[in-house]
Amino acid sequence: MTNSTDVADWWRTEIIDMEPGRIHLRGRPVQDLIGHTGFAQMIWLMVMGTEITGDRTALFEAALVSAVDHGPQAPSIAAARMAATCGVGLQSAMATGLNMLGDVHGGAGEQAIALYHLAHDAGPDGLQATLDAWRAQHGRFIPGFGHRFHKPVDPRAPRLLGLVDDAARAGAVSGAFAQIGRAIETQLTAERKKPVPMNIDGATAVIYAELGCPAPLARGFFGLSRSVGLLAHAWEQMGQGGRNKGPTPPQYRWTYDGP
Amino acid sequence: MTNSTDVADWWRTEIIDMEPGRIHLRGRPVQDLIGHTGFAQMIWLMVMGTEITGDRTALFEAALVSAVDHGPQAPSIAAARMAATCGVGLQSAMATGLNMLGDVHGGAGEQAIALYHLAHDAGPDGLQATLDAWRAQHGRFIPGFGHRFHKPVDPRAPRLLGLVDDAARAGAVSGAFAQIGRAIETQLTAERKKPVPMNIDGATAVIYAELGCPAPLARGFFGLSRSVGLLAHAWEQMGQGGRNKGPTPPQYRWTYDGP
Amino acid sequence: MTNSTDVADWWRTEIIDMEPGRIHLRGRPVQDLIGHTGFAQMIWLMVMGTEITGDRTALFEAALVSAVDHGPQAPSIAAARMAATCGVGLQSAMATGLNMLGDVHGGAGEQAIALYHLAHDAGPDGLQATLDAWRAQHGRFIPGFGHRFHKPVDPRAPRLLGLVDDAARAGAVSGAFAQIGRAIETQLTAERKKPVPMNIDGATAVIYAELGCPAPLARGFFGLSRSVGLLAHAWEQMGQGGRNKGPTPPQYRWTYDGP
Amino acid sequence: MTNSTDVADWWRTEIIDMEPGRIHLRGRPVQDLIGHTGFAQMIWLMVMGTEITGDRTALFEAALVSAVDHGPQAPSIAAARMAATCGVGLQSAMATGLNMLGDVHGGAGEQAIALYHLAHDAGPDGLQATLDAWRAQHGRFIPGFGHRFHKPVDPRAPRLLGLVDDAARAGAVSGAFAQIGRAIETQLTAERKKPVPMNIDGATAVIYAELGCPAPLARGFFGLSRSVGLLAHAWEQMGQGGRNKGPTPPQYRWTYDGP
Repeated sequence: MTNSTDVADWWRTEIIDMEPGRIHLRGRPVQDLIGHTGFAQMIWLMVMGTEITGDRTALFEAALVSAVDHGPQAPSIAAARMAATCGVGLQSAMATGLNMLGDVHGGAGEQAIALYHLAHDAGPDGLQATLDAWRAQHGRFIPGFGHRFHKPVDPRAPRLLGLVDDAARAGAVSGAFAQIGRAIETQLTAERKKPVPMNIDGATAVIYAELGCPAPLARGFFGLSRSVGLLAHAWEQMGQGGRNKGPTPPQYRWTYDGP
Repeated sequence: MTNSTDVADWWRTEIIDMEPGRIHLRGRPVQDLIGHTGFAQMIWLMVMGTEITGDRTALFEAALVSAVDHGPQAPSIAAARMAATCGVGLQSAMATGLNMLGDVHGGAGEQAIALYHLAHDAGPDGLQATLDAWRAQHGRFIPGFGHRFHKPVDPRAPRLLGLVDDAARAGAVSGAFAQIGRAIETQLTAERKKPVPMNIDGATAVIYAELGCPAPLARGFFGLSRSVGLLAHAWEQMGQGGRNKGPTPPQYRWTYDGP
Repeated sequence: MTNSTDVADWWRTEIIDMEPGRIHLRGRPVQDLIGHTGFAQMIWLMVMGTEITGDRTALFEAALVSAVDHGPQAPSIAAARMAATCGVGLQSAMATGLNMLGDVHGGAGEQAIALYHLAHDAGPDGLQATLDAWRAQHGRFIPGFGHRFHKPVDPRAPRLLGLVDDAARAGAVSGAFAQIGRAIETQLTAERKKPVPMNIDGATAVIYAELGCPAPLARGFFGLSRSVGLLAHAWEQMGQGGRNKGPTPPQYRWTYDGP
Repeated sequence: MTNSTDVADWWRTEIIDMEPGRIHLRGRPVQDLIGHTGFAQMIWLMVMGTEITGDRTALFEAALVSAVDHGPQAPSIAAARMAATCGVGLQSAMATGLNMLGDVHGGAGEQAIALYHLAHDAGPDGLQATLDAWRAQHGRFIPGFGHRFHKPVDPRAPRLLGLVDDAARAGAVSGAFAQIGRAIETQLTAERKKPVPMNIDGATAVIYAELGCPAPLARGFFGLSRSVGLLAHAWEQMGQGGRNKGPTPPQYRWTYDGP
């Protein structure tokens, strides 16, 4: 009924092939990748299975660079710093911060790409209908636009869009999703009669959509990017010391509002 | 007794400074970093607080590239793939894999750097005494050398060492730690009368030591590097499907050896 | 604009009230709970905010006891055992296993309760329509029934149902959800012309529904229950030793099926 | 070279034996445990492999009950509440909180048991020497005594000690470790000329030592206990709503103290 092949077949992968003394990643000998492939290119190769080059690499690096940190008030960063004071290893502190990410924290990029694709399929004349349908299904919130903190504008978004424009002019990407993102921004601003600018999730979603990433990978790439901030903050906190550091100074505690 | 300053002071950081519409990372406006700084350079800037350039960047990228994956039998990778079949988000699956890393899995690099520093301080004539002292304190195992799988040699290690040699010739690093690493390899091989080659932990430790990283950061950088493999494998597994995928095929179960 | 009250108000809870030398949990001094309240009763008090007593406590304990372990092939248990060989603390190994739980692994209980409530509202004559509507929305799979491994029957399910019957006869619960569960079992078995018995998720869901728990808490209570097995297995594995223990023996590795 | 037995042997356990339709936990059919074994007794059976009964069960339950919660300023509880606002599942939020526990947060109990055993072996006349030796090796901090918040006394500790006294009078435990704990308290108070009362870690460590638990299990049992609070708080927070809830109100942010 069973044989050893069953076991070897239990885990299957196109990513890595290995024998003693031999490691191939996506079909390439690891020693050929080392020294010839940048870290961002390696991320792309491992996750997407293809090579990324030139202006497209630059766009991908820009997206990864842009989301590394949003300070100790971001739940992910706060968790990593707290963990660093609880007597766990540096990698565990990083994992605790990474585990904060989900539908709400770090999830808007995936949703924005999904929305962009709907808008793309509907064409310019269908934008209003696309937004209406999105709201009917998902609620009032349009992912990737508006920011509760960075008013009037998140400095990262226009910079990222500018890079997409450059890459489109160079023919490296189509620019179609930058156009869609801007059209949504214009539409929302008109509707609410105040600026509703694209935020970091909306802008990185433009890049990932331009590069042809499936929507869920926006979360994965955000996770890789934010892990950099998690490491930086966990490491800094370890240097500062502190034991069992809670969210607020001890004298504040919390409000008991029970019976 | 308390005032609002206490709260603002509770979390302190040199990494990020932020106001609405303004994000400075390590003193640099984020929009100036985006598009001008590679992802590996950004990692260095965020964690170390300084800029890395030229051949030193290339070395750092090589170390990051080399440790991304060791296949579905590595506990980290296996955990991320399993998690991907349990109905959690992509980032949670990554976090589960990252949380596997500790003193044993992904911890040897930190120990190797610590050993290299001891060997560096002792000088060439003190190497045997350094190894003896290490074993007296930590046990028989010399971190960073030998591999239970890659025999005779891990293909990543000589490639990484070669890049250090290149960088040393170019004056980008001293080369002192590559020399120490090789001296340990020679010593261990002579002792055991069979090859005890430097492994990936020993080789990346050489690079991190050459670049001046504190030893614990070897774990942090390994965590960032391995997270790439975690994302790639979790994503691939999601595409393959599977529900509640355990470590071995169901028919094998396990051995009960209780009374 | 801000004052210290804002900070104290940031975290609000009905669960715990605390001053130096005083800890009240759900309005009760902790020293009065200690020694008078069993651990299962304490779980109920903390999570539900009410007291549980007598036959209802026994039912709750039965549900908690029943789900502690399903062996090293369960992804949660496997992850905890692997983590125990990677050089992390006992609590981190538990957390790694707990983090495996999600929509698929440990999530069926929540779905089963939701289904039971729909069936309850529809009444006996509406059962078929309820199942049809469920499948139309969620797919073919009816949560809480059938088991890929325990054929013909999961020994835990009938035992748990029997305890619900006892409690219903004693007037501690209504028994309505046990009836619904059995009606679904009968229906599915008739449809498929082979036994489709209630499984552990379906049976614990009956208990939680009888006790009046909101559906999502089936996941929370499953998490508490399974954590017992996670601790037992992580601790046993630490005693067995092992370093970087992967899912299968090293000689099996995995199948590379890339180009 | 390999055969299917190798695979079945890869995972070995004394905890669980399973065939289709049969689950034995620690050698007992699960259906016999359900309904006859309390949840705390089940924890003991699974982890320790033996049965716990009567007054010893009551002591164990008291220890488990005492540590469930210390409010939203405890890093574990704070992390679970934050996670609950980030769009992850209830079990992931619990895991994030559990992953906070380590050498510092939830680790003192293990250290206290180790100290008690040293003091036990040294006898009453050796107490001062034991404390001196502990400090020489571990630093000034004596685990299990003193509290930065609960002054003059943690209400849980004397209550737990009183229960140990009752159990000792009933012959269920020896009382030796309660005596040692109190002797350390007396000694520390005399040294510092102010009260240094036993805290929750010291008191639960007395119970675990009386019950014969290995020191590291103090962490494991603390993890199980605190998981109750993690579930309660994560669930409450989900009910309160909130998105991406950071540690402090947004207007406070943090202090940038870089160059």
